[in-house]
Amino acid sequence: MLGLNQDAVINPAQRRRLVRALRAFLPEAAVLHTEETLKPYECDGLTVFRALPMLVVRPTTESDVCRVLAICAEIGVPVVARGAGTGLSGGATPIGNGVLMSLAALNRIIAIDPLARTATVEPGVTNLAISQAVASHRLYYAPDPSSQIACSIGGNVAENSGGVHCLKYGLTVHNVLKLRVAMMDGTLVELGSAGCDCAGYDLLALLHGSEGLLGVITEITVKLLPKPAEARVVMAAFDTISAAARAVARIIASGIVPAGLELMDHAATNAVEAFAHAGYPLDAQAILLCESDGASDEVDDEIECICAILADCGASTLRVSSGAEERLQLWAGRKAAFPAIGKLSPDYYCVDGTIPRRHVADVLQRIAALSQHFGLRCANVFHAGDGNLHPLIMFDAALSDEVERAEAFGNAILMLCLEVGGSITGEHGVGLEKLDAMCAQFESAELASFHALKHAFDPLGLLNPGKAVPLLHRCGEVAARQRQRRNPQHTNLPVF
Amino acid sequence: MLGLNQDAVINPAQRRRLVRALRAFLPEAAVLHTEETLKPYECDGLTVFRALPMLVVRPTTESDVCRVLAICAEIGVPVVARGAGTGLSGGATPIGNGVLMSLAALNRIIAIDPLARTATVEPGVTNLAISQAVASHRLYYAPDPSSQIACSIGGNVAENSGGVHCLKYGLTVHNVLKLRVAMMDGTLVELGSAGCDCAGYDLLALLHGSEGLLGVITEITVKLLPKPAEARVVMAAFDTISAAARAVARIIASGIVPAGLELMDHAATNAVEAFAHAGYPLDAQAILLCESDGASDEVDDEIECICAILADCGASTLRVSSGAEERLQLWAGRKAAFPAIGKLSPDYYCVDGTIPRRHVADVLQRIAALSQHFGLRCANVFHAGDGNLHPLIMFDAALSDEVERAEAFGNAILMLCLEVGGSITGEHGVGLEKLDAMCAQFESAELASFHALKHAFDPLGLLNPGKAVPLLHRCGEVAARQRQRRNPQHTNLPVF
Repeated sequence: MLGLNQDAVINPAQRRRLVRALRAFLPEAAVLHTEETLKPYECDGLTVFRALPMLVVRPTTESDVCRVLAICAEIGVPVVARGAGTGLSGGATPIGNGVLMSLAALNRIIAIDPLARTATVEPGVTNLAISQAVASHRLYYAPDPSSQIACSIGGNVAENSGGVHCLKYGLTVHNVLKLRVAMMDGTLVELGSAGCDCAGYDLLALLHGSEGLLGVITEITVKLLPKPAEARVVMAAFDTISAAARAVARIIASGIVPAGLELMDHAATNAVEAFAHAGYPLDAQAILLCESDGASDEVDDEIECICAILADCGASTLRVSSGAEERLQLWAGRKAAFPAIGKLSPDYYCVDGTIPRRHVADVLQRIAALSQHFGLRCANVFHAGDGNLHPLIMFDAALSDEVERAEAFGNAILMLCLEVGGSITGEHGVGLEKLDAMCAQFESAELASFHALKHAFDPLGLLNPGKAVPLLHRCGEVAARQRQRRNPQHTNLPVF
Repeated sequence: MLGLNQDAVINPAQRRRLVRALRAFLPEAAVLHTEETLKPYECDGLTVFRALPMLVVRPTTESDVCRVLAICAEIGVPVVARGAGTGLSGGATPIGNGVLMSLAALNRIIAIDPLARTATVEPGVTNLAISQAVASHRLYYAPDPSSQIACSIGGNVAENSGGVHCLKYGLTVHNVLKLRVAMMDGTLVELGSAGCDCAGYDLLALLHGSEGLLGVITEITVKLLPKPAEARVVMAAFDTISAAARAVARIIASGIVPAGLELMDHAATNAVEAFAHAGYPLDAQAILLCESDGASDEVDDEIECICAILADCGASTLRVSSGAEERLQLWAGRKAAFPAIGKLSPDYYCVDGTIPRRHVADVLQRIAALSQHFGLRCANVFHAGDGNLHPLIMFDAALSDEVERAEAFGNAILMLCLEVGGSITGEHGVGLEKLDAMCAQFESAELASFHALKHAFDPLGLLNPGKAVPLLHRCGEVAARQRQRRNPQHTNLPVF
């Protein structure tokens, strides 16, 4: 697909100098260079982009991270930081002439303070491991991306990850108090504080979602929450998508903030049901899952109110989980959506975009029309509560025409998100995947601000180059391509 | 006190050129230059710093803001943006050779969307005016700094303002979805989106609390919340501060997030009671005000639980508001704290710092010791729930020795905040007031990041120069002064 930004040309002498400098303080096993040892790092979760890095470095301490960066800065070698490699937008795709720095071995839980409700951890700790480590205090870490068993907390910060529960508990940025960050020149900075606010520019928020372009995160202090005493989920089936969308709007308008509010369309429901047997009605055009958590009687009240709204909006089936097991069963379907689609189609492409909630119904209708237009099936799962949609476009990569059509379909969905006032990414980041879509979302003045900011943190442009923020030059090319496409022989294309 | 940063030297020819360029598109009344018209702008709420600006400009439209900036950038004139001038840290103090740009006339409410629960407003709209404009939809804007009748929403963004309710509803940054910002060169950028997340670096968060150093905010889209059906407050009196602090910890640990959780010490209670007759017991060593809001039975449950905890922690008096009037009466004391102290003492200095909640009791004890050491009375009001303290140091400015002692006392409190892991400001910002304290909170690497960031947005350094982030050079001088103070004849000073 697209070529990677490999501006930095590293000559053999520089490479030798680099290896010598790294080997001077790192054990042999921490500096990988043979093809077979590099291979596992050639891509992240966006597998269409692959490249072998020049070297993989696996530091085990913060000070080693700083030393690696300082050496790379001196020699002028690009560095791509990688957590667990579960990202879906190519943020951790290596660069051929660069170092891939794996932070997986920085995986210590440094401190747990149950009174202040914080945990301080290294970036390679998995999201779930934090909750496990603090479970004995009846606490947990709230953001729960679907990859939470595998994904690292450092990666969560870099991508500002969300999850099913972010409607109530916020994104990663709302659950982190403090970061330690190594700059490209090897200096360390500490951002944020244990208090509710901090002096100085809000660099803590800025680092969230910066996709490894500003610094390498070496330590994270997260907020912990008390485990809710009770959690129950309602499953509601609807005959039309618009009735389900109306129910979403009504629930939010009632003042309830559900712990999760998910929508699946007919295609997703059927794919999932065959795979996970969650008990969803197969004839429904839309399924809503709405969870309430908190104190037991609070949950009772909320569930009652939610059910009344759902019934009033015309739900044909209503099922409330009566115990932990049934709750997990009802969620199992939603959680299995991606593998279920994987069984239906040789390949699928998960689109990630955000729209204002009021556009849920019309956007889903227009996605259905696009599906017909592009001749590709599409199943929709949707964090409906916060307007974060995940259409799953099914295609067969063996047919090269389908890859192109899937890409065009995905891009059309993102343009639709922008048209209704949303954003081209909800929680998966820009990475390599959405550089062109960034050109559509931002004016050149905004992109110029992004570049100036990048320059402030990384004047040599060595941190994860070519990702997240497109060059103005590239946006010019994208615009030219679009003008070309709008020529007469293509007037049957949907216009955005 | 401290001299202002007035590096930019503007010669008379430049000044004439500036006035000519501004008059070309602005009405006469929008360009003020005589001493009597400049005088009202000589300071903000931090009245110890005063300076007459070279000119005051009062644009009425976004495009005029951009034109003013572009002209100033071209001629090289510094610009200080000002909202309502209620800031407490000197962020809007003018610069003698600079333009003060008042945004008070940009005061239109542009759009209200009750379904999406957003309002789009100009920066000069007051905080309270937003809630008033949306009241008919039963919505409101949650952050409520005590100056909310007067302070402007643009200033709230620039300072990332908090308020009594920020424990539950967050700071300004958590309640803003989108900004339009004019850069120093006059270009406009749009940050954030109507969705739950946005692509690109989080410049939206970055602008919050940036104190007018990065750009001039021209439009703000805020989140609105449904007005809670019910709000009740509990007033509890305690014989010791540490018992009250324990109650704060216990309430938070119970999982309740009160709408407000305020603490006042004996001195504050007595000052306030004489002034506002709120009904606080005069013999109490500490008063807690704890508010619950939400659905009526939810509030009942929470209040019951809060009262049980307060009683268990040894509250000697417990009073729950039984109606709206009693609720306002109980809050009236807290809200009158500043003017009440103003009646007790010719002058007072409101310190603003943040500490982790668990240090509430010991920090208040050490503030009492400092009060004795410096020979100055101090009353404490405290956003206890989020650890944001506001000691009110009483002094008489007519006695120059007292001004110095008050400053030293205030500074000692900030150093204490840092010692326990807090921050030198909670919600009032750094401005001119806390430049020295910034040197204590941040390492030079962190300050260098701040400066690099500033350079990325404002390479000529013309936006609000000399505020918020100290020069490294200044921090060197501060360190030298501190070393000097630590010489033998001063060993009786408390060490931080």
